[in-house]
Amino acid sequence: MREVAVIGVGMSEWGELWRKPMRDIFVEAALAAIDDAGVDKIDSMYVGCMTSGLFVGQEHLASMMSDYLGRSGIPATRVESACASGGLAFRLGMIEVGSGVSDVVLVGGVEKMNDVGGDGATYALATAADQEYEVYHGVTFPGLYAMVANEHMARFGTTRQQLAHVAVKNHKHGSMNPRAQYPYEVTVDGVLKSVLVADPLRILDCSPITDGAAAAVICPLEMAKKISKKPLVKVTGSGHSTDSIALHDRHDLSEFAAAKRAAETAYKMAGVGPADIDFAEVHDCFTIAEICVIEALGFVKRGEGGKAAESGLTALGGKIPVNTSGGLKSKGHPVGATGVAQIVELTEQLRGESGKRQVKGARRGLAQNMGGTGGSSVVHILEVA
Amino acid sequence: MREVAVIGVGMSEWGELWRKPMRDIFVEAALAAIDDAGVDKIDSMYVGCMTSGLFVGQEHLASMMSDYLGRSGIPATRVESACASGGLAFRLGMIEVGSGVSDVVLVGGVEKMNDVGGDGATYALATAADQEYEVYHGVTFPGLYAMVANEHMARFGTTRQQLAHVAVKNHKHGSMNPRAQYPYEVTVDGVLKSVLVADPLRILDCSPITDGAAAAVICPLEMAKKISKKPLVKVTGSGHSTDSIALHDRHDLSEFAAAKRAAETAYKMAGVGPADIDFAEVHDCFTIAEICVIEALGFVKRGEGGKAAESGLTALGGKIPVNTSGGLKSKGHPVGATGVAQIVELTEQLRGESGKRQVKGARRGLAQNMGGTGGSSVVHILEVA
Repeated sequence: MREVAVIGVGMSEWGELWRKPMRDIFVEAALAAIDDAGVDKIDSMYVGCMTSGLFVGQEHLASMMSDYLGRSGIPATRVESACASGGLAFRLGMIEVGSGVSDVVLVGGVEKMNDVGGDGATYALATAADQEYEVYHGVTFPGLYAMVANEHMARFGTTRQQLAHVAVKNHKHGSMNPRAQYPYEVTVDGVLKSVLVADPLRILDCSPITDGAAAAVICPLEMAKKISKKPLVKVTGSGHSTDSIALHDRHDLSEFAAAKRAAETAYKMAGVGPADIDFAEVHDCFTIAEICVIEALGFVKRGEGGKAAESGLTALGGKIPVNTSGGLKSKGHPVGATGVAQIVELTEQLRGESGKRQVKGARRGLAQNMGGTGGSSVVHILEVA
Repeated sequence: MREVAVIGVGMSEWGELWRKPMRDIFVEAALAAIDDAGVDKIDSMYVGCMTSGLFVGQEHLASMMSDYLGRSGIPATRVESACASGGLAFRLGMIEVGSGVSDVVLVGGVEKMNDVGGDGATYALATAADQEYEVYHGVTFPGLYAMVANEHMARFGTTRQQLAHVAVKNHKHGSMNPRAQYPYEVTVDGVLKSVLVADPLRILDCSPITDGAAAAVICPLEMAKKISKKPLVKVTGSGHSTDSIALHDRHDLSEFAAAKRAAETAYKMAGVGPADIDFAEVHDCFTIAEICVIEALGFVKRGEGGKAAESGLTALGGKIPVNTSGGLKSKGHPVGATGVAQIVELTEQLRGESGKRQVKGARRGLAQNMGGTGGSSVVHILEVA
């Protein structure tokens, strides 16, 4: 496989975008990425999206997006792996460039979640769980992650306060990100007093419902050296793994084995280990998710994820800053776009373009994107070339 | 890229499968393909599916299917391009094997369309059209293809009888396929007297609503030579192209430009032309679709697609047999599975396993899978190795 570089990244506005149709949101991000890359010719594109069918009644998504981007005719592929759809789209784009099938590939992710209204978003998101063995019986995602949290707390002594610290940290990071949906700082006390959703998780433990898109332009590293005017960022590791999507089928309720396996594959490909990672974007759809994920990635030992945010280990300036973008928690979580937005944050950090939230001396970042309660996970490692 | 071979194919039962959940249908096809391939180790899998979210309320599909197949943990990717989802899944699997990322890849397609009941299937399928500019105003697929038919008839003199001949031919082929959903012969008079759906299209011009799955196992050709006990079939051409998904945005209403471009790419890759193809499976979701597609593929000149079925050109024993499986029309059309089922038919024909409907001396076949009214198309060329 050829080495692959990220030469352009972009995002749309994120939030409750009542006045913008989904196609406009996608195109906004895609054009920003193309503009950033400074290339005009796109050979192929991938679109990560979880469930535009349920959110806005639209499938056949990649063809539509290529058309509205003014690129009708190019191969365009929509990829779905629940909330890991964006990360998976990036991986497939990387394989296509690496294989030599295409040179310049646009990878985007999009979701428009607010239009559906009422309980529609809860139902749509629940399709990432097992419809027949979980959802039918009344569980939705806050309930599933609450079970994970309860297990982790009972087993490892993780505290309610530690969960809150994850939200506090990510909102602090997000307050420095002009693109965050909720760029507001929160306090531990504020999290603990926020409305209860599914015990022990409160509303400030949960990522929001977001409309938004993100995009990246990738090409062979050798080509990037010739055409790119930006600091070069290369993809050195990629891993993808799955697990049972039903939580009750796992051998361990709070270990995200798919994330662990995907990370092992990515580390091996990059020839590095967890200690070599300077910063990471991880899938904090709920505060407990970040805790379990940083354990799966090997940043901390099993059972010690709860202490990480509390101790400042994962804050900006800490040993391994996690979710400098604000994460899903503060930046927002348009599910299909999230995995690509992680690549945007990594790329900008590695180029030194992250302003107030810049990780000093960032040379190697990791992105971990997850579907459901860990039924799929995609991990990428990006480095300064 | 490494050369890629198809070493196993399989299908589930197709029809109205009220007693089988979607996961069982997929696994039935996948196990048949794995059994046919005689391999146990699968490195990665792709699942083509159009809209399981709307049909059965289930996304995160590839993870679920890998789990129920007993392969939890492997990378598993769901791909969507409306009714071209299966063909596109096959293409991505081919790229993954070709690139060297994986050796043995399972490619499957599935759709469970009957459970949704009422108008649900019509709505779900309509999400392959432009929701905001077509569906909202009341058009669904029979109406869109009726417009294509009217334009073709007015412009080229294509007759109502010629449309009927496509159905008659494909049902005749399907009557020789034990796996066809409707393995019954029909007559021109029967088609003409069947209930009107959208003028000029009658119910016997339309493919049915089907539950079903299909699967194929692929690996590098060099590996296949060592491990396969079956006659070897290799993939020599692959093309994928898109078009505006809204019919009114096309420069030509009855020319499927995406199919034409995808075919050109596949022909070029295989180093052959339309005259070198021995037989083909094409996307006859409506009789008029087959007529337009065989023109786009270059089997007949523009405007002469209507005469092909009438004259016997595309029948078994004709110059270029089309849809020997019965096509979508008689075999059935579980939308996400169709593209993979075309690969099943090609593989079995090239191995000489097609019984009564065997194309004599078949050495090279083409599969064309299409999304919406031609908003995407995927073309593959398979040959005896």
